[in-house]
Amino acid sequence: MLYSFIDVPGLELDQEYVHETLVEFVKDQMSKARLKKAVFGLSGGLDSAVLAFLLVDALGSDNVLAAILPYNTTGPEVLKDAETVRDLLGLPSVTIDITEVVDNCYRALFAATGEEPDKVRLGNIMARQRMILLYDLSAAISGLVIGTSNKTELLLGYGTLHGDLAFAFDPLGDLYKTQIRAYARYLGVPENIVTKPPSADFWVGQTDEEDLGFTYDDLDKLLYLMIEERRTKQELLKIGFDRDFLDAVRARIRSNKFKTKMPALPRLQRRGIGGDYRYWRSTTSQKSPVPSGR
Amino acid sequence: MLYSFIDVPGLELDQEYVHETLVEFVKDQMSKARLKKAVFGLSGGLDSAVLAFLLVDALGSDNVLAAILPYNTTGPEVLKDAETVRDLLGLPSVTIDITEVVDNCYRALFAATGEEPDKVRLGNIMARQRMILLYDLSAAISGLVIGTSNKTELLLGYGTLHGDLAFAFDPLGDLYKTQIRAYARYLGVPENIVTKPPSADFWVGQTDEEDLGFTYDDLDKLLYLMIEERRTKQELLKIGFDRDFLDAVRARIRSNKFKTKMPALPRLQRRGIGGDYRYWRSTTSQKSPVPSGR
Repeated sequence: MLYSFIDVPGLELDQEYVHETLVEFVKDQMSKARLKKAVFGLSGGLDSAVLAFLLVDALGSDNVLAAILPYNTTGPEVLKDAETVRDLLGLPSVTIDITEVVDNCYRALFAATGEEPDKVRLGNIMARQRMILLYDLSAAISGLVIGTSNKTELLLGYGTLHGDLAFAFDPLGDLYKTQIRAYARYLGVPENIVTKPPSADFWVGQTDEEDLGFTYDDLDKLLYLMIEERRTKQELLKIGFDRDFLDAVRARIRSNKFKTKMPALPRLQRRGIGGDYRYWRSTTSQKSPVPSGR
Repeated sequence: MLYSFIDVPGLELDQEYVHETLVEFVKDQMSKARLKKAVFGLSGGLDSAVLAFLLVDALGSDNVLAAILPYNTTGPEVLKDAETVRDLLGLPSVTIDITEVVDNCYRALFAATGEEPDKVRLGNIMARQRMILLYDLSAAISGLVIGTSNKTELLLGYGTLHGDLAFAFDPLGDLYKTQIRAYARYLGVPENIVTKPPSADFWVGQTDEEDLGFTYDDLDKLLYLMIEERRTKQELLKIGFDRDFLDAVRARIRSNKFKTKMPALPRLQRRGIGGDYRYWRSTTSQKSPVPSGR
């Protein structure tokens, strides 16, 4: 951590407020969709462990399906952490090894293009194969796919579009990574899961902080001041952040923002799709709940 | 066609206006993303044939990669139509048979859940496996995935989320299906492709109109009056549409609208993700083009 001299008290949240708000959010989203059941990918990492605890409090363990979806590089200790969370919470679960579907897909692409997908592209294939399994499982249980992305990842675009960024709703999406750690301790997530280095687990030894080039502690301090407090570049430099760090983070946010926006459509006629358009005018029909995000 | 007695002249567009607008739209989107190359799924159906003609006019055939991605139920005549379009336009192409990845995925789900995915779920798996291949190909050529969804499908939610509904942008998204037919004739798409029954090609003999329960001619008349002309339910009944038809279409639009909206995030802190938020304030940085939809 480079910026231990910078203090950002706003990053500390009232955990009871966080938990109550998120439990309500989950219940509200499920009720809008008129569905009872939820499925999510339980990886053995911090975010999905926190989500598991939250979903059990909001929906009851019977309504939550944990999908454990390892690839052949997933270490046994990672798998064990996933199983520990499942067993602690008494969650129904399904385990599917994704190695064969991923490798098949990889080979088909290699054969067709004569070019071996690099490890980042392979990682995206893994995340998207997991999406396919989660969405099919959600259809099997008549439920919704719940996201595990945190605010730090969403802002930096550190996630796979139509992969781990595919979900009906995302309860942890307004919490920075370091805030998830604090929330995890409040929820009683096992301490080794809270403290181990975060990893997307796309290859052996991968860690988020090495990929990103920054620690989450430093990132979250900068992001909090930049986003929640709307500090200008000049102010952030004065507070003590390095110009390169600042520029790299701003560039990442800007170039990955498309991942949190709907794709563009042209406009040829009077009314386009998307946004908050209503496609009918009768007042009664507007009152019915609208399913969200299946 | 049940509603031949209802005349909707607004559905007829000036084809030069359509073509010029869409060529500009495609060029503009590529330039915002600072990318030159495009990849799309060429199925042998009408929409992807029209897209092929449009992309060649907008970007030049060298910058367009046609991905032909048949499943083992794809008929030889469908494949031949795709190859005809490719050859007519001199498009670079790649063909990948998706049967093995789809069936592997299906078997893994069957083994894990003890439940055989039905044909709709299998169709979604196909559409999503195609998405994985298209997105990986877009990474291989440093390009964007272009959508082939039309306005009728988008409104009715007749498409697979994170499957064929996954794209950086969607040039045909503001044209109703019957308008695509007229545009296709203007572009010179082979007549047999224009007139054959539209199909998602998820199983042998599948047709859209049988799936939906309505013809596109009838659907587009109703949708045009309902959406572009904002006619009320009472007005539409007076014009002569059947109450059941009206209710079924309205229910479909309502229950599938989530497919064209970003998923929900909670709000715990001062600024949320999504919408038109800008995450910095410096005036210079706001001027740089923002990549869209990779």
